[in-house]
Amino acid sequence: MSDLKEFLKQEGMSQLFQHSTIGIEKEGHRVTPAGKLAATPHPQKVDGSQTSFYIQRDFAESQLELVTPPIKNNEKEVMQWLQAIHEVALRSLDEDERIWPSSMPPVLPADDQIQVAALELASDVAYREYLVEAYGKKVQMISGIHYNFQLNPQFIKAYYQASGCVHEMSLITFQSNLYLRLARNFLRYQWILVYLFGAAPLADDSFYNQPADKFSQPIRSIRNSRLGYINKDDVTFNFDTLVSYVDELEQNVRDGRLIAEKEFYSNVRLRGAKQARDLLTSGISYLEFRIFDIQPFEEFGISVDDILFVEYFILYLIWLEEDHDMSDVVEGIQRKQATAEEGVASRSQYYQEGMAMLAGMRSMLTAIEAPGHIQTIVERMVERFEDPHLTPAARIMAQVETPAAWLDWVNDLADLYARNAKATPYALGGFTDMELSTQILMFDAIQQGYQIDILDRTDQLLRLRYRDHHEYIKNGNITSKDPYIGYYLMENKVVTKQILAEGGYAVPQSDTYASLEQVNKVVDLYAHKPIVVKPKSTNMGLGISIFKNGAPAEQLLKAFRLAFAEDDDILVEEFVAGTEYRFFVLNGKVLAVLLRVPANIKGDGEHTIRELVLAKNDNPLRGYNHRSPLEKIALGELEEISLNEQGFNFDSIPTAGEVVYLRENSNISTGGDSVDVTDQVHQSYKNIAAAMAETLGVKITGLDIMIDDISQPASDGEEPTNYGIIEANFNPMMMMHIYPSEGKGIRITRHLLDFLFPEKATSTNKLYNLAK
Amino acid sequence: MSDLKEFLKQEGMSQLFQHSTIGIEKEGHRVTPAGKLAATPHPQKVDGSQTSFYIQRDFAESQLELVTPPIKNNEKEVMQWLQAIHEVALRSLDEDERIWPSSMPPVLPADDQIQVAALELASDVAYREYLVEAYGKKVQMISGIHYNFQLNPQFIKAYYQASGCVHEMSLITFQSNLYLRLARNFLRYQWILVYLFGAAPLADDSFYNQPADKFSQPIRSIRNSRLGYINKDDVTFNFDTLVSYVDELEQNVRDGRLIAEKEFYSNVRLRGAKQARDLLTSGISYLEFRIFDIQPFEEFGISVDDILFVEYFILYLIWLEEDHDMSDVVEGIQRKQATAEEGVASRSQYYQEGMAMLAGMRSMLTAIEAPGHIQTIVERMVERFEDPHLTPAARIMAQVETPAAWLDWVNDLADLYARNAKATPYALGGFTDMELSTQILMFDAIQQGYQIDILDRTDQLLRLRYRDHHEYIKNGNITSKDPYIGYYLMENKVVTKQILAEGGYAVPQSDTYASLEQVNKVVDLYAHKPIVVKPKSTNMGLGISIFKNGAPAEQLLKAFRLAFAEDDDILVEEFVAGTEYRFFVLNGKVLAVLLRVPANIKGDGEHTIRELVLAKNDNPLRGYNHRSPLEKIALGELEEISLNEQGFNFDSIPTAGEVVYLRENSNISTGGDSVDVTDQVHQSYKNIAAAMAETLGVKITGLDIMIDDISQPASDGEEPTNYGIIEANFNPMMMMHIYPSEGKGIRITRHLLDFLFPEKATSTNKLYNLAK
Repeated sequence: MSDLKEFLKQEGMSQLFQHSTIGIEKEGHRVTPAGKLAATPHPQKVDGSQTSFYIQRDFAESQLELVTPPIKNNEKEVMQWLQAIHEVALRSLDEDERIWPSSMPPVLPADDQIQVAALELASDVAYREYLVEAYGKKVQMISGIHYNFQLNPQFIKAYYQASGCVHEMSLITFQSNLYLRLARNFLRYQWILVYLFGAAPLADDSFYNQPADKFSQPIRSIRNSRLGYINKDDVTFNFDTLVSYVDELEQNVRDGRLIAEKEFYSNVRLRGAKQARDLLTSGISYLEFRIFDIQPFEEFGISVDDILFVEYFILYLIWLEEDHDMSDVVEGIQRKQATAEEGVASRSQYYQEGMAMLAGMRSMLTAIEAPGHIQTIVERMVERFEDPHLTPAARIMAQVETPAAWLDWVNDLADLYARNAKATPYALGGFTDMELSTQILMFDAIQQGYQIDILDRTDQLLRLRYRDHHEYIKNGNITSKDPYIGYYLMENKVVTKQILAEGGYAVPQSDTYASLEQVNKVVDLYAHKPIVVKPKSTNMGLGISIFKNGAPAEQLLKAFRLAFAEDDDILVEEFVAGTEYRFFVLNGKVLAVLLRVPANIKGDGEHTIRELVLAKNDNPLRGYNHRSPLEKIALGELEEISLNEQGFNFDSIPTAGEVVYLRENSNISTGGDSVDVTDQVHQSYKNIAAAMAETLGVKITGLDIMIDDISQPASDGEEPTNYGIIEANFNPMMMMHIYPSEGKGIRITRHLLDFLFPEKATSTNKLYNLAK
Repeated sequence: MSDLKEFLKQEGMSQLFQHSTIGIEKEGHRVTPAGKLAATPHPQKVDGSQTSFYIQRDFAESQLELVTPPIKNNEKEVMQWLQAIHEVALRSLDEDERIWPSSMPPVLPADDQIQVAALELASDVAYREYLVEAYGKKVQMISGIHYNFQLNPQFIKAYYQASGCVHEMSLITFQSNLYLRLARNFLRYQWILVYLFGAAPLADDSFYNQPADKFSQPIRSIRNSRLGYINKDDVTFNFDTLVSYVDELEQNVRDGRLIAEKEFYSNVRLRGAKQARDLLTSGISYLEFRIFDIQPFEEFGISVDDILFVEYFILYLIWLEEDHDMSDVVEGIQRKQATAEEGVASRSQYYQEGMAMLAGMRSMLTAIEAPGHIQTIVERMVERFEDPHLTPAARIMAQVETPAAWLDWVNDLADLYARNAKATPYALGGFTDMELSTQILMFDAIQQGYQIDILDRTDQLLRLRYRDHHEYIKNGNITSKDPYIGYYLMENKVVTKQILAEGGYAVPQSDTYASLEQVNKVVDLYAHKPIVVKPKSTNMGLGISIFKNGAPAEQLLKAFRLAFAEDDDILVEEFVAGTEYRFFVLNGKVLAVLLRVPANIKGDGEHTIRELVLAKNDNPLRGYNHRSPLEKIALGELEEISLNEQGFNFDSIPTAGEVVYLRENSNISTGGDSVDVTDQVHQSYKNIAAAMAETLGVKITGLDIMIDDISQPASDGEEPTNYGIIEANFNPMMMMHIYPSEGKGIRITRHLLDFLFPEKATSTNKLYNLAK
């Protein structure tokens, strides 16, 4: 191999070198509010099958494994996924369960009370039963974090081409050799990570098989100690070459020292093929590092800085000259265990070597022009070497003195983290920059076990996958199921209504005009008639004038001018009496019907309007700028004018039960209420709405329909029909149906997933209601 | 009935009254260039079935019937349709045939040489054979124009509600009575229209069954004379009431005086039901007036002013008090024939009555505030009454003296009108304000017999219908067959390429950056490499920089800034060598492949560049502003700079065969050439393009692919692949494939129709080539 340090001096190469792909897997037990291991099955709300992508089970039925997708060159996004998956898991647990935020388990029941994960495949269950046999149940109950690392393939390719070995070996062999060298160096120096990140200083008595096993003092990491998850002594290994690695591993299995290759518990795993031998042809494509304890101080078990530090530590392991012989690897493994078993407050017995490594790492950071932030993180790690009290294990022991206190402390953290996850149930932590509808759809997709590719985050463009089937989704409900033309048919209000009128539906009569001159000629047609004037193509309320009781020509001319300011064409439409309802149609079925009510408060005879508004705004569903399902009611000029017109001001005290409106328009965006009336609407209107969507040839639409009395049936065809279709909306809002301010929420997004993936659909005929 | 004049004073009513719906049917014989009746069958290029909407056959196989759709309140649009249908018919005729622009036929062969229309239904043929039997073939060869008129139903309803008869009769009865009154008044006063519009003063000798039939002088309208298309004297009729009308008509059929109801040749037909008796329940919904001669002076047989005059004449017939008794109807019919048989230069024998009618009409126009233009038209009609030489019949006789001269004169007109129709074969006359792609699609739809609804003319939004099947089309090829999400997948260049790369296609590697700061950090990655810098989402060439041979960092930074000026995200893309080709994919098949070449001329060693450009611009396919398939090459500053760089100026004389480029970019919009290479491209690229569309999940797309040598196969999967996909375009251009500047044109629009209506599809596997 050519000299890496020299190669990295080439233009752009040090940048490519730093573009790693990282994925995190984090185990953790479900526990009851009292901090006991949950005896419940894997939560019903999440997809429990083994195809589930982000939320899986590990050894025990209570042991969740949360898996982020591999993320390229973006540690923050890794953390965003980890947060999101945590939130989905925590919000999906039954009976107020939480996730235990520590590697060492809570109080363990007797072995026969510990349930091995009830997986679908008999072979998977059998394997777990073998593990129980071989290692005992308790050690399997330890949880950890696995760190998956892939070097930029573009970098490997460029390095290969510059290596001078192009004629001696294939790219795949070159790549495997590189990863193997990294693996060896990792095994040599992993003890540093145990020193820096060990966070399992003590365990409950129930963890130990016999009292004699207990350490005499809190140590850095029980999980990485002799009591941890390690193979029996007779298991052999060989990291010299990929061939020797595979041969040795297979020999262990043949000789019965391992029941399967996956039983080989190295802290580094070579990834890229299911069977080790296949690595010889496919090559090692990434490495999995399994040494990390769960950090109880971190809400999601690991921090972004830790992820970054480990990434650069790994890069440094590649950068390092390999001037040691193979026996160092064995020594490295021994050092790891020795470090794990050091007292939390003691200085590392390999202090000098550790400091030298960090110094070397700093040199590399300078050479490759790493971001300044990494240097700072390395400084902090140097401090940990200088002062052992700064290590996580020591910091834990600063909080607690006894295992009992530790249990309580961990449980309090579990409670805190669970509450955090539920604070804004409509949002998906980590992805709150995206549209709410996309967040909630991703929530459901994670919960239901789909794989999610965020194709374009600012464009809200997702791909969901289940087995070989994929679907693209933009802005929450733009999919492949609706036709391209559908958008244009709905965007053009005149055309929408023409199609619906021809279909026999009750459509307020309307005329289009292309110029002020044109409409002025016929203004008399509309004078003193109940009409609505609006721009032809807009989804906002701008430029709309409503004349419920008609108006003289001069007033209409003003309205025409307002409408023309918004569009080149305007509509003059017959005014339809009644109340406007929003029907959400999916695949020929009305899922939800909503009434939007202008911003209002209800008096109690005691509090002022201002106080009542502030109290109403306290609802966690109310926020600002579409970042929540409802908007906070403003106390601004428009609201004041509106109150004054009714003889109120902000300090008025309405009588008990009196409803006071602060706005005239019913938009949710100006503090309006959303009232679900799905069950109150007469079925006839739902049938009509579904049929209208069919007539328009669309699967997903939000229909705005004026209805006089929703309890009375629509008289279809005859006059009066009791309804009038106002508008058909493409890409209709979903959040207001999922989290209405009154009535039940309907999980539109869940129905959408079932619609897109009928083969995986779990919905019955009844509507998904919102989990409260 | 309440007083109409009083009712029309109500607000808006006089406006509603004037919103009529009008449709025109125009018959006309196909003739050879020599002016002989065409002996060929109905043109193969048009749909010859009886469902064909706009182009049908009348009595004879040679007799085309061109039918406009009913158009509401827009006489100009009626004329636009008439023009469009004429153009389609004329361009679809075989062997340079034309359409005879006169009511009286050209020289007729012997009866046994005249072919009755070869219609599908045996009953239709049988009926025509009966007509031959009953009336002789010759009279059936006369052509005319039928004028369909519907009063605004909204007006009728309002008038009904104000009538005071709501409890005495239904709206349908009221409406039928109104139309029946109109029909009677029409029969009374139709002679006025014969005087004003009679345009059949003479006929060839072959028209007459016997010489004695001939009139002694040219008359106003042979078609409306005793030799015209009238029932035998024994046929009776009764327009008193709808019931008496139906009873009488049925009695005629029962008694064998008519073979079928449709044999009743009144100049007004009551429309709304197939069988007369059904009118009693359905009501009369519109009237058909059949009195009009074809105006040879008018390219399409009738002028917009004539259409307008007739409309207001009809409104006046409604406005007129009906103070006559029924016997006036019979007299009216006699007056019609008497007027038709007057000498062309003689004053009307009913001059006084005619002038009185026009005066009454003018009063109405004032009362209902009709547009000023109508008044002017009426003035011109008054002049015709004053001076018979201004009538069409007299004007024809001013042109010709003998029937032989008349034949030549009509034939010259036929030739002129046919040439006009073919002058801009890529456009559809009447609809040239629309996009070319929509014009050509409408052309094909008219030709193929589809019904077209222009849902929104400025939006280019059409609905095509065939039997019960309809399809919406916007901008030429946005349809229901492509998914809504497809647009977004193609609009986002990064996502397009991600999907295609994952699908295994050769995609130039690219990276996205969201800020100048971000890309500046990694600028070294791209220094001195062949790359393209472009904004992420745009279809125009703006903000794109190409560095075929790489460039230093400073230059790249400038390019980044240019790209960021166009979008929030930019792409840095590997440069792919080769030439860019556009592949048009429809439903999994590559229909056409095009090479776009920058604006250029080929020297001849004699002419200057300026002269060569002007000569090249003479091509009728070249125009301005996308109103033609190709753009004229400009002689502007950019072209001059480009020439100067090559050592030329506009006055240089290139050597024979030397190709000189006036532009660097190959856009058609800047005068570039379009070269069809569909048959030259190796099949492997077509397979790949079709598969890429499939991978994107779209049916219609235009793929821009870089290919080094189109004659060499693509090596799929291995490197080098010989191609690189640059872009997938939604709503791809069609005209450049249909009318390329070199190579064969491929009728994409025709394939599109077949795709949308597979049940009607007439395409075989071979591609439709352009009719030359």
